[in-house]
Amino acid sequence: MSDSPLSSSSVADPALADAGRDRIEWADAQMPVLRSIRERFAATRPLEGIAVAACLHVTAETANLVRALLAGGAHVALSAANPLSTQDEVAAAIAAEAGATVHARRGEDMDAYVAHVRTLVEGEPQITLDDGADLLTVLHARPAGLPANFLGGTEETTTGLVRLRGLQDSGRLNCPVLAVNEARTERLFNDHYGTGQSTLDGILRATNLLLAGRTVVIFGYGFTGKGIALRARGAGAQVIVCEVDPMRALEARMEGFQVMPALDAAGRGEIFITVTGAPGVLTTEHFLQMTDGAVLANAGHFDVEIDLPALDAVATGGVREVLPLVTQYEIAGETPRRLNLLAQGRVVNLAAGQGHPAAVMDMSFANQALAAEHLAQGAGTLSAGVHPVPDAIDREVATLKLRSLGVRIDTLNTEQEQYLHHWTQAPVRP
Amino acid sequence: MSDSPLSSSSVADPALADAGRDRIEWADAQMPVLRSIRERFAATRPLEGIAVAACLHVTAETANLVRALLAGGAHVALSAANPLSTQDEVAAAIAAEAGATVHARRGEDMDAYVAHVRTLVEGEPQITLDDGADLLTVLHARPAGLPANFLGGTEETTTGLVRLRGLQDSGRLNCPVLAVNEARTERLFNDHYGTGQSTLDGILRATNLLLAGRTVVIFGYGFTGKGIALRARGAGAQVIVCEVDPMRALEARMEGFQVMPALDAAGRGEIFITVTGAPGVLTTEHFLQMTDGAVLANAGHFDVEIDLPALDAVATGGVREVLPLVTQYEIAGETPRRLNLLAQGRVVNLAAGQGHPAAVMDMSFANQALAAEHLAQGAGTLSAGVHPVPDAIDREVATLKLRSLGVRIDTLNTEQEQYLHHWTQAPVRP
Amino acid sequence: MSDSPLSSSSVADPALADAGRDRIEWADAQMPVLRSIRERFAATRPLEGIAVAACLHVTAETANLVRALLAGGAHVALSAANPLSTQDEVAAAIAAEAGATVHARRGEDMDAYVAHVRTLVEGEPQITLDDGADLLTVLHARPAGLPANFLGGTEETTTGLVRLRGLQDSGRLNCPVLAVNEARTERLFNDHYGTGQSTLDGILRATNLLLAGRTVVIFGYGFTGKGIALRARGAGAQVIVCEVDPMRALEARMEGFQVMPALDAAGRGEIFITVTGAPGVLTTEHFLQMTDGAVLANAGHFDVEIDLPALDAVATGGVREVLPLVTQYEIAGETPRRLNLLAQGRVVNLAAGQGHPAAVMDMSFANQALAAEHLAQGAGTLSAGVHPVPDAIDREVATLKLRSLGVRIDTLNTEQEQYLHHWTQAPVRP
Amino acid sequence: MSDSPLSSSSVADPALADAGRDRIEWADAQMPVLRSIRERFAATRPLEGIAVAACLHVTAETANLVRALLAGGAHVALSAANPLSTQDEVAAAIAAEAGATVHARRGEDMDAYVAHVRTLVEGEPQITLDDGADLLTVLHARPAGLPANFLGGTEETTTGLVRLRGLQDSGRLNCPVLAVNEARTERLFNDHYGTGQSTLDGILRATNLLLAGRTVVIFGYGFTGKGIALRARGAGAQVIVCEVDPMRALEARMEGFQVMPALDAAGRGEIFITVTGAPGVLTTEHFLQMTDGAVLANAGHFDVEIDLPALDAVATGGVREVLPLVTQYEIAGETPRRLNLLAQGRVVNLAAGQGHPAAVMDMSFANQALAAEHLAQGAGTLSAGVHPVPDAIDREVATLKLRSLGVRIDTLNTEQEQYLHHWTQAPVRP
Repeated sequence: MSDSPLSSSSVADPALADAGRDRIEWADAQMPVLRSIRERFAATRPLEGIAVAACLHVTAETANLVRALLAGGAHVALSAANPLSTQDEVAAAIAAEAGATVHARRGEDMDAYVAHVRTLVEGEPQITLDDGADLLTVLHARPAGLPANFLGGTEETTTGLVRLRGLQDSGRLNCPVLAVNEARTERLFNDHYGTGQSTLDGILRATNLLLAGRTVVIFGYGFTGKGIALRARGAGAQVIVCEVDPMRALEARMEGFQVMPALDAAGRGEIFITVTGAPGVLTTEHFLQMTDGAVLANAGHFDVEIDLPALDAVATGGVREVLPLVTQYEIAGETPRRLNLLAQGRVVNLAAGQGHPAAVMDMSFANQALAAEHLAQGAGTLSAGVHPVPDAIDREVATLKLRSLGVRIDTLNTEQEQYLHHWTQAPVRP
Repeated sequence: MSDSPLSSSSVADPALADAGRDRIEWADAQMPVLRSIRERFAATRPLEGIAVAACLHVTAETANLVRALLAGGAHVALSAANPLSTQDEVAAAIAAEAGATVHARRGEDMDAYVAHVRTLVEGEPQITLDDGADLLTVLHARPAGLPANFLGGTEETTTGLVRLRGLQDSGRLNCPVLAVNEARTERLFNDHYGTGQSTLDGILRATNLLLAGRTVVIFGYGFTGKGIALRARGAGAQVIVCEVDPMRALEARMEGFQVMPALDAAGRGEIFITVTGAPGVLTTEHFLQMTDGAVLANAGHFDVEIDLPALDAVATGGVREVLPLVTQYEIAGETPRRLNLLAQGRVVNLAAGQGHPAAVMDMSFANQALAAEHLAQGAGTLSAGVHPVPDAIDREVATLKLRSLGVRIDTLNTEQEQYLHHWTQAPVRP
Repeated sequence: MSDSPLSSSSVADPALADAGRDRIEWADAQMPVLRSIRERFAATRPLEGIAVAACLHVTAETANLVRALLAGGAHVALSAANPLSTQDEVAAAIAAEAGATVHARRGEDMDAYVAHVRTLVEGEPQITLDDGADLLTVLHARPAGLPANFLGGTEETTTGLVRLRGLQDSGRLNCPVLAVNEARTERLFNDHYGTGQSTLDGILRATNLLLAGRTVVIFGYGFTGKGIALRARGAGAQVIVCEVDPMRALEARMEGFQVMPALDAAGRGEIFITVTGAPGVLTTEHFLQMTDGAVLANAGHFDVEIDLPALDAVATGGVREVLPLVTQYEIAGETPRRLNLLAQGRVVNLAAGQGHPAAVMDMSFANQALAAEHLAQGAGTLSAGVHPVPDAIDREVATLKLRSLGVRIDTLNTEQEQYLHHWTQAPVRP
Repeated sequence: MSDSPLSSSSVADPALADAGRDRIEWADAQMPVLRSIRERFAATRPLEGIAVAACLHVTAETANLVRALLAGGAHVALSAANPLSTQDEVAAAIAAEAGATVHARRGEDMDAYVAHVRTLVEGEPQITLDDGADLLTVLHARPAGLPANFLGGTEETTTGLVRLRGLQDSGRLNCPVLAVNEARTERLFNDHYGTGQSTLDGILRATNLLLAGRTVVIFGYGFTGKGIALRARGAGAQVIVCEVDPMRALEARMEGFQVMPALDAAGRGEIFITVTGAPGVLTTEHFLQMTDGAVLANAGHFDVEIDLPALDAVATGGVREVLPLVTQYEIAGETPRRLNLLAQGRVVNLAAGQGHPAAVMDMSFANQALAAEHLAQGAGTLSAGVHPVPDAIDREVATLKLRSLGVRIDTLNTEQEQYLHHWTQAPVRP
């Protein structure tokens, strides 16, 4: 793979490279953490000569991750985790970089996808960056097994981690994997601030509703649900939280939100947002309680949280597209009620908005780049299994982010360190 | 005008009427106040036989105002206040309504605009609804003067009111005018909540920036500036306010915002939003203090608040379009700095977003409809001059809005009324 | 009065003067606005030789007002507006100042109060500072009428203004009066921020309840009610607003509060705060809906908002003092319910807390001092009647307050002034 | 111990029992969670015949914990963890309960304290409830070792846990200990909401400052620091956070707070609150930067965070008590600056306020009661060592608290349970 010629890339139109560079530059300006890592990598070359295979969304943000890896000395082969998100001009620009090959065309079919994953695997990578665990799964499934000198992989998604932990539980995971999307800096930005903002942004783009004074019902008060609740309140909405976990429900109440069963909330809300991970959160009984004009959006990963077949079934008055991303289900009756489903119940921040801001991906990909460095540095010393991203990486990412914001902080002095050490280590009274 | 045949309308394509009706219906669902006025008008017919001329933005929301006026018995002739905002399918749908004529095609030129205004004036209207005072200005300027039985006009914009008050000050305003955009319900929704939300919405659509943790500088802490500051904080930003009025500056500080001179803020902010009404709020000295990546947006009415020629002049490193609505000005130097201007400095919620939510226009147009009714009822009794919208109308709009939200409130009982009357009227001690 | 010897003062114990000076110094440190006025007054002597009579609460904050007046050259005679609020050590300290006489002993009776007012009136003051209009009322009532060269008065309370406007309406007010408590800076700090904080502070001191997660019901969403609602939310409570004015009710809803009739709120709230100005806001029907442990507090001026006789009548299970400022009324029954009334329904921030912070009184008394200066400067030019405090005074107070906070702001440049002048004065299009 | 006669109690005045019962009743009304546990305990008697020794603050809240234990069938011997917090009337009331003995007199000396602990230990308790680990330490230190049938202990403080973990690390801890103050429900209410509110409450009681518009600097953004920051912002203050941990610093910034080094903050703040656990957080260099009137308060456990000797040393202008809990240190100079230390740097919510609201102690003591039940049920099965409070207890406490608030929540249905189980257990793709 180290001698992969540029000609081996497969992109829609190499001539788009200049346009791609513009987008990459714009994203780079929003990704100061990854940029400073790139600058350090260029000086210290922690990935010198290492073959990296990455199956990620081929976007301007990913391009900046690739640039950081290249700066660190890696050879990088990239394919698209989802052909619908591929930005062809970005693919062209990456393909033009020395040391990188790209296999991605917007809208290509499943066969092409599989072929690309296979190509990457055949490159005998030493490190894999996955968004759904496909590279690692295929590497484990092939008769040849893992490449020689394989260092390990990283995983960007919950779904991928579920698969890899399943592999581990069955005793078949043979390499270290770093759980990037469980890093604290990643969670804070991705799940909390990123999704909090982009979910409401997606709803506004689809509907142009005024949020002030509305009643917004949020199902699920996990890390993401909290982020959405915080932003909805910040936009002037009244927020009702529905939650099955008593500890989380209590937290929501103590934050000043109303907490109630879903069926009670169904008759009071105007905008409903599901983010639980569970199926059938909103179903027939809830639809029948809702008032005319209710808006239904899903911010959870799969389109199972709003029961779509049940929604179809209650729509005795018909179903129609009333705005590009708004499907209206009418419940017939003396006073007909119209329920407005956004983006077919798919995750609304991606389907109706632009997904995460680059500043959010900056944190994710900074973790990715440092995780790759960690795998390279730990060659042979990390046990097989899914590992958390080391605290030191989280701290470095946080430190770089603070620096990019121009924020300086203090450090403990020696006396304070000793006091705290003594305090946590030793008995207070003899 | 009462016998205006449908054929006299001038729209782009009458065949678009069905599509237009869909948009109008969607908007109608977000405009419960205007809808309930329409229902009352249909029963009481307060505008029976009255000729109304309206020069407004030809949008789905305006269509619902026209429907209310028609329901009240009026004949309505409509032209476009701005040809760029005309929705051709909506124009077609209105033109198909009995009693309405429409003169509006998206993108038509100034000559067509003037001709349409003249056509409306020639219809000898009894009530005018203006968005910039053109109808009333032309009516006052023509040799024939005001139509016989002219009842008065309403005005939707600050600009229009400035013109009309100028006319009044020079002793040439010959009819009553109701200042709709100074009604309390209008200001609250339009300037405060509407612009507060839509300004940030426009910025997000143009840039997809993460607001949490950013420093947002807001110039001007009037009604609109307060709305933007509130929403920016609600989105997790740090807000700095710059203001020249000490009373407003103190209010901003007491609300927990940082307050400082513009030049100090220039070096600290990441997103700058002007909403002062004054020219040259941000100019050379400020641009030179800003950090790389700064975003400049204007939420004031005219594109004079950010000094565009000065911005061009400092851009020694060039100017380029980096995203559809983002122009980047590079200040060359050892570490070049790029300033990102949104929407050419035009009002960002309209230029980069969808403008006001229908729920906001609901309040404006409810005031319009009730103002028209007031003019009709007050025939001959209102003096010439610009008048505030009567409190009773504001109260009715607020009451209808509360009802639409399902909110009930109490009323004072007799004892309480007497106590308060006594309290405010009579000396407490003999 | 100009030669009033110190011996003419009547205070509890002149030996307390040193202790009084400590309190006055502490308050002075919290009153930077008044302090800077005092410094200017010392240089410009705007009240040189003028006799001022003040009937105010004799507290450390008032002492600093007296110091400012003395610095300006005035002779000041002070009596206590309320004998219960008199701080004897402060009275002693003021009495020891050259140019001041004091007539105030904590807890003195009504006869003494009246005698003191008479003494002040007999001093033939040229300016009066009133807290309830007693000085002015007596001056108007006496056969001699107003003193020669009388310049006018100021009034600090709503109650006093009601009396004075009653006098004015009946054609008997013969001097100018400045309505200090209607100044914008006064309202902002006094009604909004001051009462907002101190009302909750009073409730906490009386009950030590945890506010987070509680449901707080606020009756009345005027300037004060808004302040309390804001702080209650800021303390983590859920806030329900009850209001009879639709415009205010709508504002409350748009700010994200729940709005409902009092009877609905009665069953949901845990802490009830009245601030309406009206009697019988909470009465039998509400008490009967309340849950066990409900807390009732009044933040309005008079103890009529919670219907105390009705509360006694429903307390079939008895009434007892359970904490120093908490009276418990038990509604007997299968599951008895206990309602806890704070401070006998008197205004809770004064009765259970320390009243307004010195920083709030700083704004009030800065307005008082500048109003006195205005009366002196306007000698003979101000018409009889109640006048608003001039905008220039409000602006000066705001400016001084900003300066004390270290906040600098910009001013309009000439071009901006002209643009705005043109914009507001002239027609936009010819 | 089971036959301990009432006469064996040692309290200040048994005649105070009635007054004590009133206080206990008032607290009981604020402690619905503990009350419902008491009611269940009365029915199920999980502590039948078990001897419990408790060394806790002898307050009305603790009395309700004792009542719950008694209801569960326990014999309870109580002594005071701190003689200064003992409420003598409460001690008298508990002593009058069947099954309880009390050894506590307000203000008794160290010898009496030690004697009481010894008495409790000699009672051969089976369960200990500690607030500082003294009971367990003494039990482990005595030659006889732990009592026969000893079930284990609980610990309420961080200090106590440090001691017990020191014991465990050295291999000398011979029984299970449940770490009550690390339970999630305890932390949420105690550290976050409780201390957040009571710290500001303590500052207001000591100073009566207006918080709106002030700059508050908070040192330490742990669980408690977050709580204080949240409430300070909620009170209208500008909040600056100083923190040495980059991850926490970043969180603070993302929540919209200013973050900076302590020395920068020293010159900007008006109120300084330390809550870091470390010594010397504020010392000479910071004091010298502060502006006149700065207020210094400590919310951390020990009075080491503000460097008191350094403060004395900079006070070249003298030190004096200006208000009951305010000591003023004057830095002499051309413009002298006065720094105001609250409560001698001791934890301000206890020293200047009333400590935690009963609703907070309700959560702590509910955990205590259920932890005691857990020790009783787990007789012989729990290993020696410090254990977390089981999740099931946290969930039960949260559930009971929600119920007391009248909040109902949903539970997962079978289909949802299976989906989530499958999702977290099994690979997604084959």
